Amino acid sequence: MNAPIKVAVTGAAGNIGYALLFRIASGDCFGKDQPVILQLLEIPPAMTALAGVVMELNDAAFPLLHGIVTSDDPNVAFAGAQQIFLVGSRPRGPGMQRADLVAANGPIFVGQGKAINDNAAPDVRVVVVGNPCNTNALIAMNSAPDVPRERFTAMTRLDQNRAVSQLAGRLGVTAGAVSRMVIWGNHGPSMYPDFHQATVNGKAVADLVDHDWLTGDFASTVKGRGGAIIKARGQSSAASAAGAAIDHMATWFNGTAEGEWASMAVPSNGEYGVPKGLIFSFPVTIKDGVYTIVKGLKINAFSQAQIDNTVAELVAERDAVKDLIG
Amino acid sequence: MNAPIKVAVTGAAGNIGYALLFRIASGDCFGKDQPVILQLLEIPPAMTALAGVVMELNDAAFPLLHGIVTSDDPNVAFAGAQQIFLVGSRPRGPGMQRADLVAANGPIFVGQGKAINDNAAPDVRVVVVGNPCNTNALIAMNSAPDVPRERFTAMTRLDQNRAVSQLAGRLGVTAGAVSRMVIWGNHGPSMYPDFHQATVNGKAVADLVDHDWLTGDFASTVKGRGGAIIKARGQSSAASAAGAAIDHMATWFNGTAEGEWASMAVPSNGEYGVPKGLIFSFPVTIKDGVYTIVKGLKINAFSQAQIDNTVAELVAERDAVKDLIG
Repeated sequence: MNAPIKVAVTGAAGNIGYALLFRIASGDCFGKDQPVILQLLEIPPAMTALAGVVMELNDAAFPLLHGIVTSDDPNVAFAGAQQIFLVGSRPRGPGMQRADLVAANGPIFVGQGKAINDNAAPDVRVVVVGNPCNTNALIAMNSAPDVPRERFTAMTRLDQNRAVSQLAGRLGVTAGAVSRMVIWGNHGPSMYPDFHQATVNGKAVADLVDHDWLTGDFASTVKGRGGAIIKARGQSSAASAAGAAIDHMATWFNGTAEGEWASMAVPSNGEYGVPKGLIFSFPVTIKDGVYTIVKGLKINAFSQAQIDNTVAELVAERDAVKDLIG
Repeated sequence: MNAPIKVAVTGAAGNIGYALLFRIASGDCFGKDQPVILQLLEIPPAMTALAGVVMELNDAAFPLLHGIVTSDDPNVAFAGAQQIFLVGSRPRGPGMQRADLVAANGPIFVGQGKAINDNAAPDVRVVVVGNPCNTNALIAMNSAPDVPRERFTAMTRLDQNRAVSQLAGRLGVTAGAVSRMVIWGNHGPSMYPDFHQATVNGKAVADLVDHDWLTGDFASTVKGRGGAIIKARGQSSAASAAGAAIDHMATWFNGTAEGEWASMAVPSNGEYGVPKGLIFSFPVTIKDGVYTIVKGLKINAFSQAQIDNTVAELVAERDAVKDLIG
């Protein structure tokens, strides 16, 4: 049995947090021989609900769960944390535009970035799930000057998984048969699900599926999936979002399988013409806890237009919070 | 990779179902090399919500999830099912007594028992989670004359896990250090959490912990835990109940570790003086998918009184549904 790792989760009493914590504690993220200590952050009004979640976590009697810390202070929740899931964020209220949402979340992620900078473990790895996640990650990263920038990422794995699910459904195969489905850019309206590299059982998706569907309904279904789920369930995606966060961190922790890619929003170094420093979703490979952006992919005119579009959206989000990122 | 197994879940769009399905699909119950086909039952008014849950299950892109069937007809949901989680039940309404609850659920479990009898796989295994789970299992078992009686069980693993958690918390150890915590009888007010066999790191709990606490607050905390969680979370236990259902079925599927016991409510063959045919929680060991009630335990006067009490409650429940069990 390994030594326990410290895993911090914000928004821990929310619906995504509730779906996430039990899977982490069961070993579904970091492995069945990796004990964890959960460090849970909530806002003061949610601390009673969080106490109930902690009771249930204890009641699940997970052998790998070696401790639980709760706090409404990020300096406590992030102390020594090696894996951090930033799930909590201000939700979009009635009449709020995306720019308002970006602005409302900014101060939260300034504070959390500073707390990570001052308290987290030297090997900390962060995924931002709370929306607008790319720009929240950008703010946190810029508020944590002592943490290597590449440790801040945002989650586009839910988009990747949704795209994989659409392709698998269309072709009548299981999700495991789909590889190299790439998400570019922002986890937002401009996100680009790029099927050009995707394969199913080793065959190019572009050769198997109707092109009009791939450039039309496929993308709109993936982008509109959150709304469709709210309509059906009466509640927003929680377990699938938690599952994508598990996948994101598990892949970062364990690496990508030979020949496989994962999509993660990570700081751009200028790859594919994306402005340096933007938190942008790219395909990556991962080995020994280090991700590498897949380089040299051929980008056709259709894809380039989509990438330019999502760059523009992220630049606008960055401009909206420029006072917060120095 | 093994051939997929068919796993049926009722109440699939409810809170426990929602917490359960993603853990089954991830491989957390039947193993990381065991594909599953989920067969989900809901009542007609919940079919839209269930469609949303299915969207999220697909969106999680689980490699082990090889198919999903949904229906409001148990004959469809149980067709060929090998593992069945009966989670759905009528909840207790305002002013309902336990006897009313037993009576209200009876017809549901008559129908589900018949549907299991007529449609499930020859190797079917059933756990009833929906309350009153012991008596619901009794009704289903008696409605399925062609299914070996020992395949019908009810869940007291949540009580076991809650008791383990209390002991672990009291002694400052992890849950994995606690063994042989036994639950006797009914998953109901008369349930008896028996600490006399329990050990922590091989030492008898009775020698480590204050006896007044073990016979007082310990039992009342375990019994009252559901209410305490509702008070804190504002919702009843879902993820911990789902976790216990996973543990119950995973242990039945994989067996108990050497020297370990699990508590399951199973048909009595008269062990410990419990009337034959009652669905009663006993400590069991499991090997190759077959459970064996642990025999020969010394029962002191305190324990015998508790066991008699929970027998009486279950006999009263049985009498309340005698028209349904022939």
